[in-house]
Amino acid sequence: MIRHLLSGADLDADTATQILDTAAEMAAVSGREVKKLPALRGRTVVNLFYEDSTRTRISFEAAAKRLSADVINFSAKGSSVTKGESLKDTALTLQAMGADAVVVRHPASGAPHRLADWVDGSVVNAGDGTHEHPTQALLDAYTMRSRLGRLAGLSVAVVGDVLHSRVARSNVLLLATLGAKVTLVGPPTLIPVDIAPGTDVCYDLDAVLPSSDVVMMLRVQRERMNDSYFPSAREYARRYGLDGPRMRRLPEHAIVMHPGPMNRGMEITPEVADSSRSTIVEQVTNGVSVRMAVLYLLLGGNNR
Amino acid sequence: MIRHLLSGADLDADTATQILDTAAEMAAVSGREVKKLPALRGRTVVNLFYEDSTRTRISFEAAAKRLSADVINFSAKGSSVTKGESLKDTALTLQAMGADAVVVRHPASGAPHRLADWVDGSVVNAGDGTHEHPTQALLDAYTMRSRLGRLAGLSVAVVGDVLHSRVARSNVLLLATLGAKVTLVGPPTLIPVDIAPGTDVCYDLDAVLPSSDVVMMLRVQRERMNDSYFPSAREYARRYGLDGPRMRRLPEHAIVMHPGPMNRGMEITPEVADSSRSTIVEQVTNGVSVRMAVLYLLLGGNNR
Amino acid sequence: MIRHLLSGADLDADTATQILDTAAEMAAVSGREVKKLPALRGRTVVNLFYEDSTRTRISFEAAAKRLSADVINFSAKGSSVTKGESLKDTALTLQAMGADAVVVRHPASGAPHRLADWVDGSVVNAGDGTHEHPTQALLDAYTMRSRLGRLAGLSVAVVGDVLHSRVARSNVLLLATLGAKVTLVGPPTLIPVDIAPGTDVCYDLDAVLPSSDVVMMLRVQRERMNDSYFPSAREYARRYGLDGPRMRRLPEHAIVMHPGPMNRGMEITPEVADSSRSTIVEQVTNGVSVRMAVLYLLLGGNNR
Repeated sequence: MIRHLLSGADLDADTATQILDTAAEMAAVSGREVKKLPALRGRTVVNLFYEDSTRTRISFEAAAKRLSADVINFSAKGSSVTKGESLKDTALTLQAMGADAVVVRHPASGAPHRLADWVDGSVVNAGDGTHEHPTQALLDAYTMRSRLGRLAGLSVAVVGDVLHSRVARSNVLLLATLGAKVTLVGPPTLIPVDIAPGTDVCYDLDAVLPSSDVVMMLRVQRERMNDSYFPSAREYARRYGLDGPRMRRLPEHAIVMHPGPMNRGMEITPEVADSSRSTIVEQVTNGVSVRMAVLYLLLGGNNR
Repeated sequence: MIRHLLSGADLDADTATQILDTAAEMAAVSGREVKKLPALRGRTVVNLFYEDSTRTRISFEAAAKRLSADVINFSAKGSSVTKGESLKDTALTLQAMGADAVVVRHPASGAPHRLADWVDGSVVNAGDGTHEHPTQALLDAYTMRSRLGRLAGLSVAVVGDVLHSRVARSNVLLLATLGAKVTLVGPPTLIPVDIAPGTDVCYDLDAVLPSSDVVMMLRVQRERMNDSYFPSAREYARRYGLDGPRMRRLPEHAIVMHPGPMNRGMEITPEVADSSRSTIVEQVTNGVSVRMAVLYLLLGGNNR
Repeated sequence: MIRHLLSGADLDADTATQILDTAAEMAAVSGREVKKLPALRGRTVVNLFYEDSTRTRISFEAAAKRLSADVINFSAKGSSVTKGESLKDTALTLQAMGADAVVVRHPASGAPHRLADWVDGSVVNAGDGTHEHPTQALLDAYTMRSRLGRLAGLSVAVVGDVLHSRVARSNVLLLATLGAKVTLVGPPTLIPVDIAPGTDVCYDLDAVLPSSDVVMMLRVQRERMNDSYFPSAREYARRYGLDGPRMRRLPEHAIVMHPGPMNRGMEITPEVADSSRSTIVEQVTNGVSVRMAVLYLLLGGNNR
């Protein structure tokens, strides 16, 4: 097993599949009857968040607690960081306090990689800048496999501001590893130029829908709306928003995904978000199972 | 048992009494020797706070932990909410993460009711706008019963800014159900017009004291002091503040309550707050027992 | 055993040694195999922080959790304190909620002492104003003893802004009790006038180094840099910063300490901070063991 989870590229097909299979076991076991597993009892998981992300933080916290780990939340707002402590010294401190795993969210791309150089414990990248968010890619893969029965050969459209999306980047890497075919869809200014070999690009959402098994809508970062990159909000929704008529052009079995939180009415309409094709709520549930699996495998359960 | 606790009106006399009796058992059992009960082991209680209220949050957190539940704190400041996530999507997210109970504090009256439509778990209203705060009413009833031996037939004066007080509103509803007689006391501009049948109103605190078994002083919201509703601070304290001389006009057995935090010198003087008639500290202790009872009964203990 | 830990002066040599010995046992026991001890199961430790100090808060939180206590974090930012609640009422509230220990950080010197008058539980001073920080002194003593085998007779140079340093004040008190010899080193404007008998003062760091067993560098409070007390940053680093050449003037066995977080390049250079003489990371690890020992002894373990 790998020691850290920093990038979708850290995962070969076997390791990724092992995580997904373990997550499925976690989901089966931690149902209503035995919600709490003793696997990580006495282990300490630190949530080190330099950016607000309650959703991701809670998901990791719930995952760690269901495995009986102790969780310490460290919000870098209002912390020693404001006293100018370096990331390295923070890392050494957490290490010295006995953190077995550090789950890190950071605005700078690459910060988790540097952290991993300085600690003995495991580092999990919970989102770094516009770079990666590998557990999101894993939970997305889990959700696709669970709904559609397989990953190999699926056609997945990733739609929106791909350029700035760590969710998109991690998904592209992992889906390639697992044999799915990705098409990036969005305005030309929001598609990166250095896309991975084997990934398609299309600027026309309507052209892609009829052949897609999965449509993954990315969150629009409203704060980017004044960028030169970006069309107006209305223009964006008209060209790249998923509404009912567009959804009905998908194949019958196709699913609609979104990492949340949604801008209802912008990249997705309420009709689509609340439809039976939507996996948005399942993604959240699956997120806890996948993070349980990641923490369990990285920390080696009781056998380390 | 009810599934949610949203309003004092949700509770009929039997259910309210069951909660108070269960709270008494909780208080007896979770003394120094066995502080931790296994009843909610493996259950997850989320504290979803859109307003600061450390006091209430800690009380629920302590209650849940004494029942061995896992507690996840979600302060909506610095959360996805700042990214514009709707209450509905937050609800679906917490639901999907496996929250068994959501304890919610929200500035908008009615928010907990809407939340309850969207989640399978139990919702506990921990204060919504100027609307309700039912666990406060339960702990107040518990405190009266514990000090005075009964609730039926008690004369309870609720004093101050009744109009904006969720504590007052929930107390009026619950005390009526349990057979106590409530008199609202305050300046005419701060007494609501649509008071429940059977509730008295009086603008003269001194007239009410000699016949009161309980005087419940409400917290003055200093930020409302510039409202047209409100007399000046000095005038308010002079007419509706409880000081030593006024306290001595109460019957010998009568008690003085306050939900906290107090404005010492405004609605209550230190002499009164620290007197043996004051139940202010007991109310805090009883709050933990009552919230243990509410969580225990809503979540069905180990038998759900 | 004492009931509170408010000051380095609370500790006589026997009690301090008992804490250090207990910390050594905690460190030995809570290794990889049995990280979690049941000693404080069912006890509640409240971290009451009126100032940001993630580092200290996490250390106490980790310590309490390894002893199986429930931990409730109470950040006074965004709390009832903003509603003007007094420290006394906060104390009574925590007491009433059943806090067995309150760990308090407060900007006002003496606040923990007042808190201790109002609660039945134990109070641990986690830093009050410029006054004291006794668990820091204990972990520093632990670190010296562990590296150098003894405390009695050691020569300890405490270097920097001694005047405003609670770390320095607690260390001076505790080291005197345990028989070490302290020399305060810094610019004349930053050395207090009322130093304890038996403590030396020197304004010349280079003169002190060759005879020091321990050099404890204090953190420079950059926000004080515009004070009349303070030399310029460059002048400060030149005269009182510890760099490689200075470090090599120390005796072979001597160690370099820092309470963290460091200003690398100001009071200490990276070469020194990361050298084998530096105990900075050990201090953090020892902090958890020492705080486990303090909580364990104050709360009487399972025998209270």
